[in-house]
Amino acid sequence: MSRIALLLFGGGVVALAGAVTFMAAASGQSEEQDSAPIYGIKFPANFREWQLIAVNNLLIAGKTDQLRAQLGNDIAIKAFKEGKVPFPDGAIIAAIHWTRVRSQDNSNVLTGPFPGAQSFVVGSSVNVQFMVKDSKKYAATGGWGFADFKGREPGNEALHETCFPCHGPAKNHDYVFTHYAP
Amino acid sequence: MSRIALLLFGGGVVALAGAVTFMAAASGQSEEQDSAPIYGIKFPANFREWQLIAVNNLLIAGKTDQLRAQLGNDIAIKAFKEGKVPFPDGAIIAAIHWTRVRSQDNSNVLTGPFPGAQSFVVGSSVNVQFMVKDSKKYAATGGWGFADFKGREPGNEALHETCFPCHGPAKNHDYVFTHYAP
Repeated sequence: MSRIALLLFGGGVVALAGAVTFMAAASGQSEEQDSAPIYGIKFPANFREWQLIAVNNLLIAGKTDQLRAQLGNDIAIKAFKEGKVPFPDGAIIAAIHWTRVRSQDNSNVLTGPFPGAQSFVVGSSVNVQFMVKDSKKYAATGGWGFADFKGREPGNEALHETCFPCHGPAKNHDYVFTHYAP
Repeated sequence: MSRIALLLFGGGVVALAGAVTFMAAASGQSEEQDSAPIYGIKFPANFREWQLIAVNNLLIAGKTDQLRAQLGNDIAIKAFKEGKVPFPDGAIIAAIHWTRVRSQDNSNVLTGPFPGAQSFVVGSSVNVQFMVKDSKKYAATGGWGFADFKGREPGNEALHETCFPCHGPAKNHDYVFTHYAP
């Protein structure tokens, strides 16, 4: 466990509030194989237990239609609630992306009281992205490391090279687009 | 606290996993005034810390455009993950409804790499609904009590009379429309 923590957080020992644990390397694989490239982030096994930051919806006509939720570990949630930027070291934000699909069952129920109602629910998981704050290790990218997984398989290096440039316009909010939902 | 618990759960003492607490009555108000009608459910102060079940999106042309998230207390989450119905006594499900609004900032960022991209985020809070399982107290309504709050103000009796009939079509999933998102 300490070796994994060191891989994630470089030379510093970072105290993570809450029970943040990381998946051990799959049997027979080296640890490198299930770490995301560039930033070396491993899949945080328990992220689905973290608190909700916000939800959103991304549409790209003819290509992408997603429902999304952002979750945060305890350090991230505390910072979001206090409205403090930059986020402290140890903060981790997870962004879960699912396909958005029409629920015919739900729509049928709703069109009784609400004519024309359409209910959309999550379909399948598309990917899960993480931002890990370590101001020393990731100094060159605003203090953030980035990771993108499909299932528990990390994306390739080319994909991960797009993360930080894309987050650049959110520099005034410490490179984080998401705000805490009321 | 014990009096509030009794109001909520009738004659039975129900063990709630996790730190489920309930807001004390506002100063100068009787406890009745901030309980939802019919089912007598008080606003669970800490529900925003519960784990995420799923997200969805409700559209009623010209009337409603919402992003929604469902959260569950520990008892509810355990049942969702195990796929067990009926839900056990003590399970509480929260459904948070926000307006869905276009984020021009996010859309501007995305249209570079993704022409035509539209990002929708949560706007303001519309209401929060709760389903509280108590198979004895709420035997007449499938074992569920229902509550609808705007801010922390409960809706009226006429509104609460619509809850259970609307959930009837989900009887095979213990009157719960939401399924756990992967």
